[in-house]
Amino acid sequence: LYAQGTRCAELLAAEEAGERARGATAYLNLEPGDCYGDSTAVSSLVQAGITRVVVGLRHPLKHLRGKAIQSLRSEGIQVDVVGEDLQSKLFKEALTSCLIVNAPLLYRAAFRVPFSVLKYAMTADGKIAASSGHASWVSGRASRGRVFELRGRSDAVIVGGNTVRRDDPRLTARHVKGHVPVRIVMSQTCNLPEEANLWNVHEAYTIVATQRGARRDFQKKLAMKGVEVVEFDMLNPRDVMSYCYDRGYLSVLWECGGTLSAAAISARVIHKVYAFCAPKIIGGVTAPTPVGDLGMNQMTQAIDLIDVSYEQIDRDMLMSGFIQPIPDLSPVIPSADEIPSVDPEVSPYETNIISFYKTWDTFGAFSNFSPHPIDMPDEKGDCLTWPTVEHYYQAHKFVGVDNPQANDIVQEIKQARSPEEAARIGRTRQREFPELV
Amino acid sequence: LYAQGTRCAELLAAEEAGERARGATAYLNLEPGDCYGDSTAVSSLVQAGITRVVVGLRHPLKHLRGKAIQSLRSEGIQVDVVGEDLQSKLFKEALTSCLIVNAPLLYRAAFRVPFSVLKYAMTADGKIAASSGHASWVSGRASRGRVFELRGRSDAVIVGGNTVRRDDPRLTARHVKGHVPVRIVMSQTCNLPEEANLWNVHEAYTIVATQRGARRDFQKKLAMKGVEVVEFDMLNPRDVMSYCYDRGYLSVLWECGGTLSAAAISARVIHKVYAFCAPKIIGGVTAPTPVGDLGMNQMTQAIDLIDVSYEQIDRDMLMSGFIQPIPDLSPVIPSADEIPSVDPEVSPYETNIISFYKTWDTFGAFSNFSPHPIDMPDEKGDCLTWPTVEHYYQAHKFVGVDNPQANDIVQEIKQARSPEEAARIGRTRQREFPELV
Repeated sequence: LYAQGTRCAELLAAEEAGERARGATAYLNLEPGDCYGDSTAVSSLVQAGITRVVVGLRHPLKHLRGKAIQSLRSEGIQVDVVGEDLQSKLFKEALTSCLIVNAPLLYRAAFRVPFSVLKYAMTADGKIAASSGHASWVSGRASRGRVFELRGRSDAVIVGGNTVRRDDPRLTARHVKGHVPVRIVMSQTCNLPEEANLWNVHEAYTIVATQRGARRDFQKKLAMKGVEVVEFDMLNPRDVMSYCYDRGYLSVLWECGGTLSAAAISARVIHKVYAFCAPKIIGGVTAPTPVGDLGMNQMTQAIDLIDVSYEQIDRDMLMSGFIQPIPDLSPVIPSADEIPSVDPEVSPYETNIISFYKTWDTFGAFSNFSPHPIDMPDEKGDCLTWPTVEHYYQAHKFVGVDNPQANDIVQEIKQARSPEEAARIGRTRQREFPELV
Repeated sequence: LYAQGTRCAELLAAEEAGERARGATAYLNLEPGDCYGDSTAVSSLVQAGITRVVVGLRHPLKHLRGKAIQSLRSEGIQVDVVGEDLQSKLFKEALTSCLIVNAPLLYRAAFRVPFSVLKYAMTADGKIAASSGHASWVSGRASRGRVFELRGRSDAVIVGGNTVRRDDPRLTARHVKGHVPVRIVMSQTCNLPEEANLWNVHEAYTIVATQRGARRDFQKKLAMKGVEVVEFDMLNPRDVMSYCYDRGYLSVLWECGGTLSAAAISARVIHKVYAFCAPKIIGGVTAPTPVGDLGMNQMTQAIDLIDVSYEQIDRDMLMSGFIQPIPDLSPVIPSADEIPSVDPEVSPYETNIISFYKTWDTFGAFSNFSPHPIDMPDEKGDCLTWPTVEHYYQAHKFVGVDNPQANDIVQEIKQARSPEEAARIGRTRQREFPELV
C-alpha cells in the first residue's frame, strides 16, 4: 500500500530494475490495490517485462481482492499466491512476514477500526512517572527519536485529559521529516487547560473528543483557536475508533496514561503494544504504571503478547508484540478469481449513497485526495497542472487576493508533497491570515 | 576465587594445557589469593612452565594483595598487571571485564557487606503480581531456570514476611545441581505462618531475622523445626547484611517484594538488579510493582543503572545492571610489592583476637572449612584421610553408634563435595535422627 501522494512501489521497483526486470520474478507482500482507479502497479509490472509475480497476500479489501491478480494473469504473467499456489513451511513463514508488514491494513479491514498501537515508556521498576506524576524523561533520546518515527507513521496520536493537564505534550513528529499526525485528546469532562501546546494547531491538527454537552463555552474557545471539537453521546475508545475509521485513518498511536490505556485494551481496540523500558529505578508505591485496571485477579489471566520482538535502542529496550492475532483475510479455499463489480457491502437496493472520504474507499478515486493531477486554466487562461484536486481547492482560498504573501501561500500549497499536506497548509494559513482569504 | 571445596582454577588450567603450557603466557582476571595458606595457584603455574602471567586485578583483600604477584616474580616469571604495567584503551576494556567478573569480591572488600543482587520478574506493564497479590507465574520456564542458577551461585536468598505469607516459596535451586543457598526471611513482627515450605530445613537451611522480642513463643517453634532465628535490635537491611558479612557470605540474592526492595536500595546495600520482563499485560492500579517508595518525586532523580546488559530468555527479556559503580581497589599509583606481614586492620596493640569464620579471612587457614585434608586414626587405629576438619567433625557426631544407618550417614558426610555440604548433611541428619547422635 502506498501512502497518499507518494509513488507506487511497483513503479519505483520497475524503474530501479530497468532492463534487469525483463523475464524476472517480482515478489509482492500484498496484491496491489489500485485505490485510485488507475492501474499503475499492474501496468508497471507488465511494461517492465516481468514474467512471474509471487503475491504474499490477496488484498484485504473486498472490492480490490483478486482484481490485480486477474489483471496480471490476463496479461499472460504467471501469478503464484503464497498459501494457495505455493505451500510449504518456508512459505508459511513468508506468509507470516507478509501478515506482519500489512498488519495495519488487515486489522482495519477485519475489525473496521484503525490499527491501534499502545506506546509507553517505563522504568526498570515499571513506573511511567514518579509518585508526583513527573514523567520527563523516562526513556533516552534515541527512544524518543523512535517515538517521533512511530508518530510519523500514524494518522493520529491519542492522549487523555490527564496527560494534557500534567505533561502538556506537543505530540509532533519533531526531528523526523514527513507526515505529522492529527492529535486527539479524549476528555469526558473537557476539563482541560486554557493554554496548552496541543491548542497550537500551526504545528499539527488537533481534535478534542468529549462527551456531549461538556463545557460548551470552553469548546467554543477551543474552536476559536482552530481546534476541532467532536462530541460523543458516550465518550469511549470504541466509538472514538469508529469515528477515526470513518475518517479513513489507518494507524493510530495511543500515548496515554494507565486509565485510558486500560479502557482501550478492555474495549479491544488496541492491537499492538510498544513498551520502552529504561534502565533506571524510580520507586514509588503510588507511582503510575502503564496499564490501569483490566479486572484481572490472577496472573494466569494476563494477556499474552503475540509475535513478540525485542530491540535495544541505545540504553533502553523496546518490547513489542501484538495483543490480538493478525487477521488472515485470505480465503481458506482459494476461490475463483471473481471480482465483485461493486462493493457488495454497498447494495444498490439499499442506498444510492457512495462514500469516498479517503482514497481507499470503494469509490476513493472520486476523493479530492486522490492523487490524480488536474489541469486547470489560471487567471490568464494558461493551463496549469495541479498535483491533486485538494491542492487546487486549498490554493484557491488565497487566489485573487492582491497580496504577495497570498501568492507565497499559493506556491507553498502547490508544492505540498501530498494532498494531506496541502490541506494542512491551507487550513492553517486560513486561520493565521483570515484577511487573505 | 575458587569456591570452598573446589579445586583451584590455575591448577585445572595447567592440567588441561599440559605440555602446551611450557613457555606460555597465563591470563588471570584476578591475582590468585591463596586463602588456605598454601600456594596451589602459584606453584601450579610455576610447575606448568608458564613464563609470563598477565594479571587483571590485584587481589582486593589487603592481606593477599601483591603476595602472589611477588611470589611469581621471585620464581622468575614475568608478571604484567593490567592498568599498571599494561595501559591502553584495549587494556582499559579488559580491566572493566575483570572488574565485572570479580564484582562480588570487590563489593564485599570495599563495602564490608556481601554483594547483593535484587531480582524480580514483572509483566510488560510493570507489575510483579495481580491486584489480588497472585504472582505465579510472571516469567516463563526458561527465566525461572535462570533464577535457579542465580540461587545456585548465591550464599543466601532473602525474602520478606509478605512473600512467605503470600507465595509460600521454597527458594531452592531445584533442577540445578550444586550449591543450595541459605534462605533468610526478614520479618520485624515475626508474624509468619505456622507451616511454610521454608520451615522444611531438609531442603535447605533457613534463617529468620526478626526484631528483638518479637513473638518469642513462635521463635521457639521455629527453632524446634531447625530454623535458625536471629534477633536484631533494629531489623533493617544494613544490619542484616553486616550479619551476613560476618558469616562470610559473598553473594546474596534478594527475591523480595517492593517494600523490602525499596528499603534495601535506600540502605544502599543492593549492588545489582536483575529484572525479568515477561511479554504479558495484567493491568491493575493497585497491583504491586517491583520497588516501593524511595522518596523520589522527580523522574530526573531516578537511579540510573550502570553497565546495563540485555538478554532474551525464551519469550522474556532480562535486564541487568549495577546500581553502584564496581569499586576498583587497584592502587592508583602502583606501589612497591609490599606485603603486610599481618592484616593491618588487626593491630596487635589493640587486640589479640583473630577471626577465621570463613577461609578468606586473614587467618582463614585455621578454619575448619579450610580444604586441607587431615589424617586421623579410626577406632581400630588405622589412619584415615578426611577432606576437611569439618567433614571429620560432622561425621563424628554419628561415630560409635552401633547402627547401620549411622554408618551410612558417616559415609555420606565423608563423600560430601565441600565442607559446607558436610556441615549441611551433618546438621540435617542430627535433627532427623537425634537417637543416632
